[in-house]
Amino acid sequence: MPMTPPGSALRLDTVAQDLLFRQAHSTHVFTDEPVTDETVQAVYDLVKYGPTAFNQQPLRVVLVRSHEARRKLVGHMARGNREKTARSPLVAILAGDRDFHTELPEQFPLFPEAATRFYSDPAIRERSAEFNGALQVAYFIIGVRAAGLAAGPMSGFDAIGINKEFFAESAHFVLAVVNIGWPPEGARHSRGPRLDFEQVFTTA
Amino acid sequence: MPMTPPGSALRLDTVAQDLLFRQAHSTHVFTDEPVTDETVQAVYDLVKYGPTAFNQQPLRVVLVRSHEARRKLVGHMARGNREKTARSPLVAILAGDRDFHTELPEQFPLFPEAATRFYSDPAIRERSAEFNGALQVAYFIIGVRAAGLAAGPMSGFDAIGINKEFFAESAHFVLAVVNIGWPPEGARHSRGPRLDFEQVFTTA
Repeated sequence: MPMTPPGSALRLDTVAQDLLFRQAHSTHVFTDEPVTDETVQAVYDLVKYGPTAFNQQPLRVVLVRSHEARRKLVGHMARGNREKTARSPLVAILAGDRDFHTELPEQFPLFPEAATRFYSDPAIRERSAEFNGALQVAYFIIGVRAAGLAAGPMSGFDAIGINKEFFAESAHFVLAVVNIGWPPEGARHSRGPRLDFEQVFTTA
Repeated sequence: MPMTPPGSALRLDTVAQDLLFRQAHSTHVFTDEPVTDETVQAVYDLVKYGPTAFNQQPLRVVLVRSHEARRKLVGHMARGNREKTARSPLVAILAGDRDFHTELPEQFPLFPEAATRFYSDPAIRERSAEFNGALQVAYFIIGVRAAGLAAGPMSGFDAIGINKEFFAESAHFVLAVVNIGWPPEGARHSRGPRLDFEQVFTTA
């Protein structure tokens, strides 16, 4: 019986589907090859176009390049994340900027009042930076994979410690820490289960 | 002088880059062609693989198909979003499930204690459902584009009203409402500005 290949109903070709979703895996095992700023820039140059509310762009990224900064960051990671954070070719701290609204008049010129009308309340602003920052974290992970790199996003860390260490003088706050590197050839991964369509979708 | 085309440093081919990011736009103008459940299922079958913390999958989606449900939803949208929500071929309510942790022992069998160890506090759980739900919202938008569809994500609505109307008997809460349809041929969009690499990235 002929099988319809998975993803054939989509416009995106299956090579791209595999690269971004089907064959991609979170990992913390990489080759020794460095990840250059040029590659990271190419990633950002793609994913900066991902949509957010009112075109806000709260995402901020610290590329942890120095030995000293790496050592400090590792100290704030959960025990199980320390060794992989220590030995990844590149580690990025992804943060949200609570003061993103100051850029809104420029980023969303159609409705310059958005900055004051929706985001005058610091609590609303923080929640928005976290939610829209999370959208941008997801786009960034997709972009890392689009470069042929692999990403190991982590949520296990002392957020207060990282914020004090890296963002004491800014309105930024950590959203995720991501290990980044080139995947070793022929790496095999197991895949956690996923919910079925029927468990996620309902019709009203 | 020869120019390097944008995105040539990435593994993902430029057709896919255009489809997902460079040429894709948030829109609320679609053809009349319906969006079938089969297409939505193909989208989910791709983006369900997007990574989250502990493989949690808080995203829940209501496909608003009936006239009655559409009428109710439109009443909870911000004034500027009502007409476009009323006339889109498909509208999806994207929500987070506060009780996602009950599925964790199955979804993250490597560490079944995650459900109790990290998510016993309802406030932590809600925040996690919102953050990881937002990651899944972003993957879903990318998936809609991967199908050749266009997405019009909206954040302007009365969340309390939508939650009361659609989620009164569940632990779900609305994250975003997304208009979905097939883009008209040759549609042209203006693009809001994006922050430069240097505004977003720093090195430590």
